[in-house]
Amino acid sequence: MKKWIAGLALATLALGFAAQAEDEGPFAMEIEARQGLMVYRAINIGTLAAMAKGEAEYDAAKAKVAADALLASANLDASMLWPAGSDNAANPKSTAAAAIWEEGSKIGDDSAAFKTAAEAMAAAAGTDLASLQGAMGGLGGACGSCHKAYRIPSN
Amino acid sequence: MKKWIAGLALATLALGFAAQAEDEGPFAMEIEARQGLMVYRAINIGTLAAMAKGEAEYDAAKAKVAADALLASANLDASMLWPAGSDNAANPKSTAAAAIWEEGSKIGDDSAAFKTAAEAMAAAAGTDLASLQGAMGGLGGACGSCHKAYRIPSN
Repeated sequence: MKKWIAGLALATLALGFAAQAEDEGPFAMEIEARQGLMVYRAINIGTLAAMAKGEAEYDAAKAKVAADALLASANLDASMLWPAGSDNAANPKSTAAAAIWEEGSKIGDDSAAFKTAAEAMAAAAGTDLASLQGAMGGLGGACGSCHKAYRIPSN
Repeated sequence: MKKWIAGLALATLALGFAAQAEDEGPFAMEIEARQGLMVYRAINIGTLAAMAKGEAEYDAAKAKVAADALLASANLDASMLWPAGSDNAANPKSTAAAAIWEEGSKIGDDSAAFKTAAEAMAAAAGTDLASLQGAMGGLGGACGSCHKAYRIPSN
């Protein structure tokens, strides 16, 4: 019984999130979660990029933590965050282009390319600075390819 | 050379995020990423809670996807999202209490309890409805314990 009460409290909590999100327009929860995930990636890429550019001292352990985090975030199941129609036209908080869900979309390929690039970075980041720098290009290419095709610039 | 240009473009992208975030006050990126991660969890808990309460039909495969996603998000390294001082007093966008970082904080225990509860749910969700319902209490307790102690209610 006690367990059920805690379970109900949890359900109420989840519904509380949902009610709060309703004020923010359609797909507000999905949009907030996926944008948060993108920022998670940006934080870790920022750590790696600062070392690659010599703005921060190379630290093998720190680089490995950032690269492993990036890879784990690439492998996190995001299928529930991208329901069809949850684009910029449905809710201007999103910068996602409708083309993501259209016939001929290359979003699956782009997603796979990002995972491959994140794997390469995870294998390289803790080795030495030159290896980390060598893996930046692939990562930049994967991020850029998807953003150029499917991200509507904000402003 | 081409690789380096892509790498630099990526670094610029990450810095673009950082510059954008600076307008939003201290720790804006960390706060956005961790709130997004919480919403990711809320979405998946919502799927499980709806089945537990009979608001949605029990679907073993769908329940397993949600529970696995929840567990993966519990295991995602969030260490870089919680720098000391990134609390509600530093930036009102955060609902994190300063007590998280204070002497005697139980945040480590709470985090471990959440992982344990998420593991139990991942093991139970795909079995049958009764098992899923049985795992809801532990999850509710883990979420609630941490939120009660360390989350400042947003109005």
